[in-house]
Amino acid sequence: MAEATAPTRRARSGGGAARRAARSAVQIECAKYIERKIPNYEVLDEAALTIIESNAEVVLEEIGVNFTGNPQSLERWRQAGADVQGERVRFPKGMVRDLCKTAPAQFTQHARNPDRNVVIGGTNLVTAPVYGPPFVRDAEGGRRYATMADFQKFVKLGYMSKYLHHSGGTVCEPTDVPVNKRHLDMLLAHMTLSDKPFMGSVTEPSRAQDCVEMCEILFGKAFVQENTVMTSLININSPLTFDETMMGALEVYAKNNQAAIISPFIVGGAMAPVSVTATLTQVLAEVMVGIAYSQLIRPGAPVIFGTFVTSIDMNSGAPTFGTPEASQILYGAGQLARRLGLPYRSGGGLCGSKLPDAQAAYETANTLNAGLLGGVNFMLHACGWLEGGLVASFEKFVMDADQLGTLDKMAQGVAVDENAQALDALREVGPGGHYLGCAHTQANFKEAFWRSDLLDYKPFETWSDEGARDTASLATARVAKLLGDYTPPPLDPEIKARLDSYVAEKKASMPDAFG
Amino acid sequence: MAEATAPTRRARSGGGAARRAARSAVQIECAKYIERKIPNYEVLDEAALTIIESNAEVVLEEIGVNFTGNPQSLERWRQAGADVQGERVRFPKGMVRDLCKTAPAQFTQHARNPDRNVVIGGTNLVTAPVYGPPFVRDAEGGRRYATMADFQKFVKLGYMSKYLHHSGGTVCEPTDVPVNKRHLDMLLAHMTLSDKPFMGSVTEPSRAQDCVEMCEILFGKAFVQENTVMTSLININSPLTFDETMMGALEVYAKNNQAAIISPFIVGGAMAPVSVTATLTQVLAEVMVGIAYSQLIRPGAPVIFGTFVTSIDMNSGAPTFGTPEASQILYGAGQLARRLGLPYRSGGGLCGSKLPDAQAAYETANTLNAGLLGGVNFMLHACGWLEGGLVASFEKFVMDADQLGTLDKMAQGVAVDENAQALDALREVGPGGHYLGCAHTQANFKEAFWRSDLLDYKPFETWSDEGARDTASLATARVAKLLGDYTPPPLDPEIKARLDSYVAEKKASMPDAFG
Repeated sequence: MAEATAPTRRARSGGGAARRAARSAVQIECAKYIERKIPNYEVLDEAALTIIESNAEVVLEEIGVNFTGNPQSLERWRQAGADVQGERVRFPKGMVRDLCKTAPAQFTQHARNPDRNVVIGGTNLVTAPVYGPPFVRDAEGGRRYATMADFQKFVKLGYMSKYLHHSGGTVCEPTDVPVNKRHLDMLLAHMTLSDKPFMGSVTEPSRAQDCVEMCEILFGKAFVQENTVMTSLININSPLTFDETMMGALEVYAKNNQAAIISPFIVGGAMAPVSVTATLTQVLAEVMVGIAYSQLIRPGAPVIFGTFVTSIDMNSGAPTFGTPEASQILYGAGQLARRLGLPYRSGGGLCGSKLPDAQAAYETANTLNAGLLGGVNFMLHACGWLEGGLVASFEKFVMDADQLGTLDKMAQGVAVDENAQALDALREVGPGGHYLGCAHTQANFKEAFWRSDLLDYKPFETWSDEGARDTASLATARVAKLLGDYTPPPLDPEIKARLDSYVAEKKASMPDAFG
Repeated sequence: MAEATAPTRRARSGGGAARRAARSAVQIECAKYIERKIPNYEVLDEAALTIIESNAEVVLEEIGVNFTGNPQSLERWRQAGADVQGERVRFPKGMVRDLCKTAPAQFTQHARNPDRNVVIGGTNLVTAPVYGPPFVRDAEGGRRYATMADFQKFVKLGYMSKYLHHSGGTVCEPTDVPVNKRHLDMLLAHMTLSDKPFMGSVTEPSRAQDCVEMCEILFGKAFVQENTVMTSLININSPLTFDETMMGALEVYAKNNQAAIISPFIVGGAMAPVSVTATLTQVLAEVMVGIAYSQLIRPGAPVIFGTFVTSIDMNSGAPTFGTPEASQILYGAGQLARRLGLPYRSGGGLCGSKLPDAQAAYETANTLNAGLLGGVNFMLHACGWLEGGLVASFEKFVMDADQLGTLDKMAQGVAVDENAQALDALREVGPGGHYLGCAHTQANFKEAFWRSDLLDYKPFETWSDEGARDTASLATARVAKLLGDYTPPPLDPEIKARLDSYVAEKKASMPDAFG
């Protein structure tokens, strides 16, 4: 599939109320997605890659995978030429890889504000927030079950975060809303409180369909069929199992030309062997099957090669993050994805710590750095992740979002033009001088160095007088500031009203379900 | 120079007291220095490297450098063919680079325990602790001037840290000892409280000479002349200035075949232009001159291409750490050093934070990761650095030292042998199973995943019941545990007595000098 191009759409911000909102809105800075001008880092040589690819074919041919509770999928595989025995599907050598070939190398996910469109694939990096935690934590309220109010705050923070390109999906689980209605409120929040691209629901095929319909209200029906407006997370039930819920959601999205991240979720040593090479083998086999299945549904449907692998503490069984093995898998899977010519999802601000402390930051920085250098195209969990993904942390959200600026700057690479060579500055200053006042510095200092919006750069005495605050305390203040400054992006009130009605009617049509 | 080989030495741990000490000593784990089996990361392409190398020659030929207060050095340069005008020295194109060619590509620095010898250069990475802070900080005592007692505690912690290969130098400034006598007490601590390699004093040529003499007691006079037993830090007074103190110390060390790190100390935008490329140009010019000078003193003297560059917060003038520009310079300087065929020093656990908090860890992890992937051979400040180097932190020392284990594991690369391929495990478990109990896991789990000795991996409830401690609190406990477990490595009492006498006599021969 050639990269989709956005047709010109009528302005959706029309109407007096929207114009008034636009006038009074605080100017929100939002950086374009990252276009790397730096090389990828690779840990596997050609021999290792060949072994892994060859072993993945052995897994697919000899062991196969299970498609559970989904007779239709088994029939599809049978027709495609696979060997189906019960729910087990085995594949002739090369078949799955061949099916992956119709998947696009990159695609545009449209946002309702075209300036926020993201191109996923190639050398690009798109960042999205944490996904899935049932708990939230902040300094004031501690750790508690997440609510819809928390969810909305996170969407607002995401909208206000310059280096976050994507509003994400289940930023936290709004546990105060019945499980069968959550997706409606969540999507409504992404659509109305932010103008960045977002993810759809995957917890039931019917909920995926609701998301498609809400997008048809927001973007127009024809636009949705021709363009990708959602990227959703389809987890594989590792090892080697594809369940009916996730595959059902995948079917809905692929049919509608909406993007899916096909992603094993692996705690190393439990859901894959205790070896980087064998885990990569399993990941490759699993992802290729998922992508091939999406292409059986609709050839050309946009997909992302996903990899989520943690290591494990063999003493306690706890998943561990920011570890060398996790980085090696991230780097290796990126190489495998690029050899398939597919966009790659991995990385993020992963950590196991209970608090937004030094452990959280070491583990997060290890993962963010690997994600940048490992060629990740879609970085889910880029900010806000805490406690192995059980908790969405308000403080860590803004801490990580600030660090994403370092990835942006690093990715720009090193300029070597005449201005960057600065020979005149070297001549002007000479031995023993200083550069603070020289002409080159005056002309360039504003853009020269990345600067944190959060971290402390003050002299010790000032910092001490101001309360000797640690990073988490500075983050608490920043969360309050950003939420205080927040104003929603303009949205056509008619569309807003139709979305509200859709959600209200859908919710009224169903009994509440929890759990 | 070919890599030096250690001659067999008489056992220095002889004597009944030493034998008794050896029997009762706690077994201290110490990993071998890191031998990378992974590639280096490179941000500069051939064109950029050529521009920087060519511009460095322009700097050397047109602008030149100053050798201040050191007429002997000017005379040396004149004889070598440089153009000397006053204290300014300019160099014909290629001259300085040619002089660097006699410097060895790698060398062995010997420790008094031969198991702790380090080979500096090639694909190796040797880690050494923080260097230079006048203050220390810990949870109990807060921030305060460092004392000799603090210094000794840091040397003990370094000795107890598995992934720290080097005892370092001025781990903190013992401000309670007169400045003209500090080097004696510091070196004595490194020599007696640890058996890892160490650095010599550079604050005066005579103090460098004292260090050589103490090494002659510890290692034997002939051994010191034939082998490198110290690696010392020679800072260039950027931009482009070589002062008499540092050059005097370099002369002493080079004459005695002892290693020197030739290192610009640059706060970007102040001591170099606000551009990565121009800063690299200046760094290359400066380091080549320093190394060439060492080779004029003694061709073949071991040296390290050093680079210490921070970025700057242009609002406050504060140096900043773990930033993208600092990483780009680290990567780029590594490429330049390798093209000169020289060992490379940079990186470490650099940060600007006042506390061992998330900021400290983000910045530190960014720098440690760049150091590993950027091909650093000697990583000074690998642990304990806080507040831009003003503070040596006990907590951060053990936190960073723990993270160094991730570099060690990452550097081992990805095994792809039959055991790592684990096809039998994949076959044994199959779709929907789990790997925790399978034969491959049982055989491999102990070595499979790096495990922190410090970070929290406990379930939330356990962690909560135990006081909900953050990383700094866990580190406080670990500092106490390590110092409690410490026993000194065995040392021949006769040598110990001679070292004590040397220090006592030297100190008695001088009036106290402070400041």
